[in-house]
Amino acid sequence: MLTTELRELFKQMTIEEKVGQTIQLSADFFSEETEDITGPMNEMAMTEEKKFQVGSVLGVTGAEKTIKLQKEYMEKHRLSIPLLFMADIIHGDHTIFPIPLGLGATWDPELIKETASISAKEAAAQGLHITFSPMVDLVRDPRWGRVLESTGEDKTLNKHYARAFVEGYQGTDLKEDLTKLAACVKHFAGYGAPRGGRDYNSVDLNENTFREHYLPAYQEGIEAGAKLVMTAFNTIDNIPATGNKRLMREILRKEMKFNGVLISDWGAIGELVPHGVAQDNKQAAELALEAGVDIEMMSAAYSEHLVELVKADKNLETLLDETVMNILVLKEELGLFDNPYRGADTETEKTAIFSSENKAVALKTAEKSLVLLENKNALPLKQSEKVVLTGPMKDSHDLLGAWSWKGDKTKTPTLKEAMDHHLGKNTVKVIDETEIFNGAQSFLLAELQEADTVLVALGETSEMSGEATSRTNIQLPKMQIELLKELRKLNKKVVAVLFNGRPLDLSEVTPLVDGLVEAWFPGSKGAEAIVNVLYGVINPSGRLSMTFPRSVGQIPIFYNQDNTGRPSEQGGPADKYLSKYLDSENTPLYPFGYGLSYTTFEYTELTLSKTEITSADSIEASVVVRNTGVSAGTETVQLYIRDKVGEVVRPVKELHDFKQINLQPGERRTVNFTLLEEQLRYTHADHTVKSDPGEFLLGIGADSTIELTHSFNLIN
Amino acid sequence: MLTTELRELFKQMTIEEKVGQTIQLSADFFSEETEDITGPMNEMAMTEEKKFQVGSVLGVTGAEKTIKLQKEYMEKHRLSIPLLFMADIIHGDHTIFPIPLGLGATWDPELIKETASISAKEAAAQGLHITFSPMVDLVRDPRWGRVLESTGEDKTLNKHYARAFVEGYQGTDLKEDLTKLAACVKHFAGYGAPRGGRDYNSVDLNENTFREHYLPAYQEGIEAGAKLVMTAFNTIDNIPATGNKRLMREILRKEMKFNGVLISDWGAIGELVPHGVAQDNKQAAELALEAGVDIEMMSAAYSEHLVELVKADKNLETLLDETVMNILVLKEELGLFDNPYRGADTETEKTAIFSSENKAVALKTAEKSLVLLENKNALPLKQSEKVVLTGPMKDSHDLLGAWSWKGDKTKTPTLKEAMDHHLGKNTVKVIDETEIFNGAQSFLLAELQEADTVLVALGETSEMSGEATSRTNIQLPKMQIELLKELRKLNKKVVAVLFNGRPLDLSEVTPLVDGLVEAWFPGSKGAEAIVNVLYGVINPSGRLSMTFPRSVGQIPIFYNQDNTGRPSEQGGPADKYLSKYLDSENTPLYPFGYGLSYTTFEYTELTLSKTEITSADSIEASVVVRNTGVSAGTETVQLYIRDKVGEVVRPVKELHDFKQINLQPGERRTVNFTLLEEQLRYTHADHTVKSDPGEFLLGIGADSTIELTHSFNLIN
Repeated sequence: MLTTELRELFKQMTIEEKVGQTIQLSADFFSEETEDITGPMNEMAMTEEKKFQVGSVLGVTGAEKTIKLQKEYMEKHRLSIPLLFMADIIHGDHTIFPIPLGLGATWDPELIKETASISAKEAAAQGLHITFSPMVDLVRDPRWGRVLESTGEDKTLNKHYARAFVEGYQGTDLKEDLTKLAACVKHFAGYGAPRGGRDYNSVDLNENTFREHYLPAYQEGIEAGAKLVMTAFNTIDNIPATGNKRLMREILRKEMKFNGVLISDWGAIGELVPHGVAQDNKQAAELALEAGVDIEMMSAAYSEHLVELVKADKNLETLLDETVMNILVLKEELGLFDNPYRGADTETEKTAIFSSENKAVALKTAEKSLVLLENKNALPLKQSEKVVLTGPMKDSHDLLGAWSWKGDKTKTPTLKEAMDHHLGKNTVKVIDETEIFNGAQSFLLAELQEADTVLVALGETSEMSGEATSRTNIQLPKMQIELLKELRKLNKKVVAVLFNGRPLDLSEVTPLVDGLVEAWFPGSKGAEAIVNVLYGVINPSGRLSMTFPRSVGQIPIFYNQDNTGRPSEQGGPADKYLSKYLDSENTPLYPFGYGLSYTTFEYTELTLSKTEITSADSIEASVVVRNTGVSAGTETVQLYIRDKVGEVVRPVKELHDFKQINLQPGERRTVNFTLLEEQLRYTHADHTVKSDPGEFLLGIGADSTIELTHSFNLIN
Repeated sequence: MLTTELRELFKQMTIEEKVGQTIQLSADFFSEETEDITGPMNEMAMTEEKKFQVGSVLGVTGAEKTIKLQKEYMEKHRLSIPLLFMADIIHGDHTIFPIPLGLGATWDPELIKETASISAKEAAAQGLHITFSPMVDLVRDPRWGRVLESTGEDKTLNKHYARAFVEGYQGTDLKEDLTKLAACVKHFAGYGAPRGGRDYNSVDLNENTFREHYLPAYQEGIEAGAKLVMTAFNTIDNIPATGNKRLMREILRKEMKFNGVLISDWGAIGELVPHGVAQDNKQAAELALEAGVDIEMMSAAYSEHLVELVKADKNLETLLDETVMNILVLKEELGLFDNPYRGADTETEKTAIFSSENKAVALKTAEKSLVLLENKNALPLKQSEKVVLTGPMKDSHDLLGAWSWKGDKTKTPTLKEAMDHHLGKNTVKVIDETEIFNGAQSFLLAELQEADTVLVALGETSEMSGEATSRTNIQLPKMQIELLKELRKLNKKVVAVLFNGRPLDLSEVTPLVDGLVEAWFPGSKGAEAIVNVLYGVINPSGRLSMTFPRSVGQIPIFYNQDNTGRPSEQGGPADKYLSKYLDSENTPLYPFGYGLSYTTFEYTELTLSKTEITSADSIEASVVVRNTGVSAGTETVQLYIRDKVGEVVRPVKELHDFKQINLQPGERRTVNFTLLEEQLRYTHADHTVKSDPGEFLLGIGADSTIELTHSFNLIN
């Protein structure tokens, strides 16, 4: 459909039909059983007539259903405007990849792009048009349960992932490529910084930090072409994002140049009332429309009040018209006016979903997401080694994590099953951990005496992370620590595998284990990936994209902290008046960028092509990396920079670039980075983003703890 | 001296002499032993000539010394400009009152004013002119060690205290009343909100929160007439306060109308270099002068570079002139040009310091600062009761707390000594707590069998709170919990007295005790106050001015939190998608405003004179409070209000007013509050402070957990 045709269609629309486009209904409005106007429909102030005017639907999937529903809608809608089908496809559709925090640990945006592409393919075949992904919220607080859905604490890394997700979902032409979905960058903005890590709580971010660290990943997703942005539940400068005109009109639309569809998060327009910035749904509708929210998800403010509001106020009608055009343009960009069923196809669906190809990528991604945190000569396990498996997660199918509603747990092998598959059935002895507590020491001795290694599967259940799962205590459940203590007494190698959706406080765990593998919720092929890592079939290469604190009392802790006026590094332990704690180091337990390998890498010959850079040229930074161990391995070479003097306080170091390389034992390779002036820009006090002349320090190494040994100058 | 004379003097000053006024030297520059230019003097870039041009001195006290030094300076200074003598007199000079967090718990600003007045009297007699007090920083994070020096988390309460301190120190006429000091409101601004509770760390506060909650107490101190303001170590919007032109020129000078002397905190100008906003001390000096910092404390940026800078730049010279006038005006306001020795007097000193009158106020203040947290029929102790005293603080003189450098611990009775004094020597049996661990149960049984009550003195040492004493763990030391567990086994009443400088996580303590008294660091007469409370000589009336969390994982937790879009109160425990934690209640262990009494109070008949208010009238709110117990007692009647709808999200409740009353058993009294429109104003998105018409909820009761039962409307 041409723009002129779209405008023609738009002109024919009544106000009621226009408002209809701004409304989204959920799947329960369309189940066969609820033909009458029942509960949920009343809640959304729906009538049978209004129902068939709505513009989009949430959570209806399956080619048969979506085709049928689209058909019905096209027939009943006076202007035959097709529906948009949307759903949460977060880290896989049927083929479940690791949780985003695990994806973050791959440091492999190309691979993440591939996972998004697979998700799109599976979902599009079912008739979906839009996924509420990627979540690009930067997070510095592991108490927040939804950290699971973030790729981490770093803006540069998050930017890479934001782009990868968007490109993977959307491809290059949504109209032509029916295996693609439109992406929705969320949650705009700052949702990852609720006070106390408590979900939905207010956010305290100073404007400079907000702009410098939190906005860039959203910006990157938008620049990568994301068609939608979702509002956040939280406040920005004490005004809820969903009714925040400055945030949405000034920052998102004007500064960040977003011109797609802005959709509210679930119920967020209605929540302007409990938030206490709107008296009632009517005022909430007005605030949200004024802020530029195009689609209301799961509250009834637009549905109940927009017609009335718009009829009374010409300015609001203009805003509504803009909103409706945004939505119609999206439908057109998806090609729905020409092909309302788009990729929905019952045949394609059968072959696209959970295919061997998809599962192979799930396996590879899971393997790359695993982070080896500790290894005191415990791993890899030898094929011949006698292993006893225990722990609450030893035979659990709960490996998919939150936001995997279409994943099938029963088709997700457990760690025990994967061990059996690898070693042969019943080679691994399994001990119920409850028996260790109930059990006589004699029992243990008998069972364990011959074992070389105790493999213990620990962690959080999947209900303990994700939305609305904030925790004040981020340690493992107490009984699991007790279990480790019991096992430690046995004088055997103890290797723990952790399943969890957040950085944990592992201070008590580390001293009790010889090997420690962070497995996150690794997805459909997670257990196989773990076994491959445990037995050295693959060499682990995951690197943390988020700091693991020593305790909850260090939060917020993140590698790129601001420099203080009294840096703790300035003095020794006896120097009191420095920025530090009495009872804890400032450093975390496991830093950003950290992860072990079965081999070792040596960094030498760091060189800069010159020591001065201008906006017209570049510096080449290179380093020689050598595999000094005995197995092949993948290393993520990380480049950090510090801006020594800024107009505002600058971080002690910042990741600027990284490269992943594979090296055979003994192999050495020169890794090159090109450094441009534009990478040295930052947000100034007046919000402009620019660089300042002056000195910068640079380092290239294995994680965020490296020293920045080299210096260069930016000159005008 | 007249203004014209001051201007005349000013005109005669060379640039070097002007810069001299901006420099402060510490006591070690003036000790008799260091006649040569030694370490510290070199560090400050001093010469013998420059030394006698400086404008102020830090930490020199004692009438003899200050008189001698002033005399020497007046003689050596070409224009005979007198020195300013400044020091940290924080919660008492020689007579030490409870730490400010304890003062906060009195809810008695008049009493706090009296303490400040006494501090001034003692200090002025020694020749001091200025104290670096009050610290009015609002704090929501008990990890921060310097919370000890704050009066708490609430802006309204802090405002009352800010004014009380300033009025107490300064009186009504500094020139006439030689027993007064000039006050210095600190630390401007937001020092109480360092990330992670780590002292000197960067601050994340959104602008609306910063203005609405953090600025008011500084504003109140300034409006009360404080002559000085001190800069903070931290950043505001990522620029260190000490070099933050917008903060100091726009907000402090212009918006808040401060026209006194702005002094840097210790070394804070020099710290602009490690902070990374200045290349060197020269740039640091320039930034600080541009921001309007008048006096540099303990770094050498002004001393080294200001002459050179000012000679090269006319604009900077203008700024220097303003700065010097600020300082000269302050000297004039203190009457120093006419009477350079001011209150310094070796005779007065002898009688003013640590007098019986002063100690009586210290006792009263300590009594009022104690907060009875738990009482399961354990307190008050009966005179005849057999009490065993134990715990690491049982016989400790360490009751003065940080910032009590002139307090004499040896003259501070211990809890044991006060018990002895109250009951007669050796009536209380004292058991070394280490014996309880080493000790045979038999020993304990023998010693304790006859006791009715075990009194256990626990807490932090004074080195564990104050500046640069941040803790990630805010529980009592582990051994103290173990001690309580051992004592609990004895089947005796266990009463714990806590000495500490921050809200602690007492979740493990509460179930182990029958009585719990929060004693803070109670000062010179603290132990006597505690004994008076324990034995019911006085009825405890302290109320927390800061929330005590259930765990460090709840931080920041404070009573006047912002409402969310998904309030946890909206649903039951089964409702997942609310703003709450999986593993903890949102509520604290002990809320703001909380404290028990030996009697009970009943609130009835809450009435509003009307249900509508305009800017032209007021509402009278009244409540009847009755003492329903058997002893006389003091109740702090607290009035809380909620603004139901705002342009920005408003707190779930806010303290607006309070009154303290004494009631005999059975006595009832009507307590009245007058409510004005101006109390309903808040900071809007554009930073204007105004009220909005609409509904408000009101409640009057005993602490911040009361329900807001009454409603009224503000109309235009």
